[in-house]
Amino acid sequence: MADTPLQNLIRTLSKFPGLGPRSAQRGVLYLLKNDGSALSQLLNDLVCVKQAVQRCKNCGNLDHQNPCSICMDVKRDATQLCIVENVSDLWAIEHARFFKGHYHVLGGSLSAIDGVGPAQLNTSTLVNRIHTEKITEVIIALSATIEGQTTTYYISDLLASLDIKMYSLAQGVPFGGELNYLDEGTLSAAFLDKRSISKNSNPYAA
Amino acid sequence: MADTPLQNLIRTLSKFPGLGPRSAQRGVLYLLKNDGSALSQLLNDLVCVKQAVQRCKNCGNLDHQNPCSICMDVKRDATQLCIVENVSDLWAIEHARFFKGHYHVLGGSLSAIDGVGPAQLNTSTLVNRIHTEKITEVIIALSATIEGQTTTYYISDLLASLDIKMYSLAQGVPFGGELNYLDEGTLSAAFLDKRSISKNSNPYAA
Repeated sequence: MADTPLQNLIRTLSKFPGLGPRSAQRGVLYLLKNDGSALSQLLNDLVCVKQAVQRCKNCGNLDHQNPCSICMDVKRDATQLCIVENVSDLWAIEHARFFKGHYHVLGGSLSAIDGVGPAQLNTSTLVNRIHTEKITEVIIALSATIEGQTTTYYISDLLASLDIKMYSLAQGVPFGGELNYLDEGTLSAAFLDKRSISKNSNPYAA
Repeated sequence: MADTPLQNLIRTLSKFPGLGPRSAQRGVLYLLKNDGSALSQLLNDLVCVKQAVQRCKNCGNLDHQNPCSICMDVKRDATQLCIVENVSDLWAIEHARFFKGHYHVLGGSLSAIDGVGPAQLNTSTLVNRIHTEKITEVIIALSATIEGQTTTYYISDLLASLDIKMYSLAQGVPFGGELNYLDEGTLSAAFLDKRSISKNSNPYAA
């Protein structure tokens, strides 16, 4: 078969993360079921996103308003800034509902192999933001990978002269983690940063 | 967060077969990467499919022309008709590239539980098609399930008075199937329909 509209759509969908050629085929048939109601819905939502969603000029988040709804939310703590790699990291932190400050999305992490240098990251406005928004606390919440750690060092260097508190995330045993399944790096980090148990705070103490 | 365009698109995508809420999120970020080039491509392909693709009035296939390109292909054997449940079955058979006749897509199989009776299936034109298209051979290629077998009996009853050859698919050991992993039904079917090995056709004979 030549490149028919169906074949084109299947090829486009099969590049979607999590889908392959077979599931893209199934997906196209799902879209065409019931007179294509699912297709119309998807089209409608895609058009809305294409028209409305843009990158926040302030923090780099994706939203339907600019500055984004997080930057505009007066209930949030404007003195705290959490620096993340990607919007998906921002969404993950928002999903956990404990951080109430603002964000700054870098758009990646430093990686010589992938050709990502400081110029490719959204850092040019960072120092200025911290000044003008009177931020006093910066949490650099990047992945615990080589690239993430390199970027954490780079950012902390960049902000070293500023009068702010700077944090990186704690490393240790993840929730539900069984010790015999953990890698050596995580185990040694958990031992290095071990926490003192005071009698008052220990729920297991008699 | 309320129903923003992004949330709507994530919800719509998470209903897609093979995707869930997490992979739909990843998918939306994939679509918005590089100034949304993947989003534009998907939009374009969806619009083309919505505008062009329709159900073939002759056989029930989905295609950008009507009658579909299989029905219109003069190189195919118009005396053979393969009856399938769904377009996905038709695609699977086409993908294997051995059947060169025409198709008739039922749009499902008889199922009392799902409320699918003969009226819901694309059978009204079937007898007429066999007459006018001078079909001499019908292969009823339905799933080897209770519903598929019930539908096979129903169709063979419907066509019993016609002067045609009728076939159902062979049942037996699937390609690459190991006997100790096969269910009893498949094994007994393979024994019932056992094939004689003549010395000429046996590649293992001395």
